[in-house]
Amino acid sequence: MSLRITLSLAAALTFSAGVAIAAPAADEPIQPIPAAKVKDANLVELGKKLYFDTRLSKSGFISCNSCHNLSMGGTDNLKTSIGHNWNKGPINAPTVLNSSMNLAQFWDGRAADLKAQAGGPIANPGEMASNHALAVEVLQSIPGYVDEFKKVFGSDKVTIDEVTKAIAAFEETLVTPNSRFDKWLKGDKKALTATELAGYNLFKDSGCTACHNGPAVGGNSFQKMGVVEPYTATSPAEGRVAVTKDEADRFNFKVPTLRNVELTYPYFHDGEAATLSKAVETMGRIQLGKNFTADENAKIVAFLKSLTGEQPSFKMPILPPSSDATPRPTPFEK
Amino acid sequence: MSLRITLSLAAALTFSAGVAIAAPAADEPIQPIPAAKVKDANLVELGKKLYFDTRLSKSGFISCNSCHNLSMGGTDNLKTSIGHNWNKGPINAPTVLNSSMNLAQFWDGRAADLKAQAGGPIANPGEMASNHALAVEVLQSIPGYVDEFKKVFGSDKVTIDEVTKAIAAFEETLVTPNSRFDKWLKGDKKALTATELAGYNLFKDSGCTACHNGPAVGGNSFQKMGVVEPYTATSPAEGRVAVTKDEADRFNFKVPTLRNVELTYPYFHDGEAATLSKAVETMGRIQLGKNFTADENAKIVAFLKSLTGEQPSFKMPILPPSSDATPRPTPFEK
Repeated sequence: MSLRITLSLAAALTFSAGVAIAAPAADEPIQPIPAAKVKDANLVELGKKLYFDTRLSKSGFISCNSCHNLSMGGTDNLKTSIGHNWNKGPINAPTVLNSSMNLAQFWDGRAADLKAQAGGPIANPGEMASNHALAVEVLQSIPGYVDEFKKVFGSDKVTIDEVTKAIAAFEETLVTPNSRFDKWLKGDKKALTATELAGYNLFKDSGCTACHNGPAVGGNSFQKMGVVEPYTATSPAEGRVAVTKDEADRFNFKVPTLRNVELTYPYFHDGEAATLSKAVETMGRIQLGKNFTADENAKIVAFLKSLTGEQPSFKMPILPPSSDATPRPTPFEK
Repeated sequence: MSLRITLSLAAALTFSAGVAIAAPAADEPIQPIPAAKVKDANLVELGKKLYFDTRLSKSGFISCNSCHNLSMGGTDNLKTSIGHNWNKGPINAPTVLNSSMNLAQFWDGRAADLKAQAGGPIANPGEMASNHALAVEVLQSIPGYVDEFKKVFGSDKVTIDEVTKAIAAFEETLVTPNSRFDKWLKGDKKALTATELAGYNLFKDSGCTACHNGPAVGGNSFQKMGVVEPYTATSPAEGRVAVTKDEADRFNFKVPTLRNVELTYPYFHDGEAATLSKAVETMGRIQLGKNFTADENAKIVAFLKSLTGEQPSFKMPILPPSSDATPRPTPFEK
C-alpha cells in the first residue's frame, strides 16, 4: 500500500513538472487526442467484420477498407477513389482515422455522423453499388452474422440501422493518440526537433491554426477553398452548397484533419496536391496570401509529420462464410 | 521438478490412450497439418506488408490480398477474379491457405513454387497490371521499405527476387492446423459427429481420396477434370497442356486442396459450383461415375466442413508511406 502511494505521488510530481516546463496544452490551438474508449467490445468486433466485408458490395470485391484502408492511413492514397466497375469517383476519399471528431461526414458534411455516413457508399452506384435491402439480405443469410447480431442487438432480424451502427462503433475506435506532437503538447520537450518546433510556430504565426485546430487539427468547420486566390479544382464537387442550397456555401468544404497527414496523400478534395510540400505551398498562397520560402515550407512539413500517431492495431477479422442461401456477388452484371 | 514430471507423464499417457483408441493418422489417406514454423520473422513481416501493399499494382488499388483475401479463406469468393480496369479474370483464384503444400502453383502448375508464383499477378496486365521494374522502383523510393529490405537482405538495393522471396515466406506461414478433422485424426474421437464420420467414410469408400489425400487433402497431383463424363467449363483454361505442350495433359488441373473448403466457394477452376453440395454432386458424377443420394451428399458436405482449420491470425500491417519521389498509381491511364 505504501509503495503504491509513493509511486502515485512520483507520477503526479513528474506530470506537474512536465506541464510546468513546457507550454500547457490548454494554451495551444491544438490539443492531444485521447485514446479510444471501447464501450461495447462485441459491437466493435461486429463492426470491424462489416468494415472488411466485401459482400456489402454488389461485386463482392469492395469493402469499406478498400477506400479507407487501415494499412494506409485510413485512405486509398488515390486522387479519387475506384468504385464499382472501375468507376472513377468524383472526390478524394477522406481518412477514416479520427473521423469521429469531425463536425459532420463527407467533404460537404451531408452526413451528420459516422452512422449516417456508413450507409452511403454501400448504396452508391459508383462505389459499392449494392442497396440496403440486398446488403441486409446477404447478412441475414449468413449464420455467423445472425448469431453475432443477435448477441449484440438481441434480435434475429438484421437491419441496416444495426449494420451502420456497428460500422460506426468500430470507426469510433480508429483514433491515433500519442503522436510526437501530442507528447510535446503533454510536456515532453524532447519529442520535437528544433526544425519541427519552428515549423509549428510558423504554422501558428501564419494563421493555419485559424482552421486547423482542436484535437483533430481540423475537421471542425467548413471553409471556402480559395479565400485569397481562387482554386481551380479538377473535381466537380460544389462543396457545402450542395447540402444547404445557400450560395454563400459554394466551394465551402469541411476542413480536413491534419492528423496522420504524412500518410493520407494526395491532398485536397480533388487529390491534386501529390505531396505535403505542394499542399503547404498551395494552402499558404490561396488561403492566407503567403508565399512560404523553401525553408519555411520544409519546416512546416516537418511539423506536420510529427502529427502521425499510433495507428489502430488489431487482428485481421475472419469473416463468417456465406451459406447456400446467400445471394452471390454479381460483379459483371449490368 | 516432480510436478513437471508428473504432468508430462500424464500428458504422454493421455496422448497414447487417444492414439490407441482411434485409428492412428498414419493409416488414413489424410494427415494432420503441422503448424507453421517461422524461420525468419523479419522476412515474414516484410512479406506480409508486401502482400497487403496495393502499390505493387498499377492502379494502387489491388494487392495480393484483394484476390487471396485472408479474411475470406484466402480467396475472393468470386467465380473468377476482378483485375485491373475491372478485368474479368479467366479462372477461379485458388486459396493461398496451405498453398505451400501444393506440388506447384496455379491451376496448371506453371509456377514451381510460391516464390515463382508471386511475381506473376504483379506483372499480369489483367490482374495487378504493373511490371517488375516499376514495382521495384516504387519500393526503392519508400524509405521504410528500404530500411526493412536492408535489415532482412543486407543490401540498399531492392530486387524483385527479394520481393517475391518475402511474399512467399509470408505465404508459407498461412497454414491452418487444428481443424476438427485433424483433432479426430490425432485421436480425439469426440471431435467429429457421427454424420461427419459417416461422410468421411463415404468420401474414402467412394474413391475421393484417390486424388484428395495427404495433409492438404489435395494439391499433390494433376488430374483430368471429367474422367467418367466430360465437363463443359465456362473458363477458357486448357489445363496442364498449356505448360507441358503434351496433349495427354489437356484439361488436367492441379487437384485443389479441400482444407477450409467451407470458406473457399465457389468451386472448380471456373467457379461454376456455387455450393459444396453442387461440387460434391458434380465431382461424384464426372470423376467417379457415382450419383450420391441427398443423404450421402449431405454427409460428405458435413465431413468437408470439419476440414476448416485455425485461420491465420495476425495484426493488420501498417505500410510505410510513399515519399515525394514515389511513382504515383495510374488507375485510369491507358
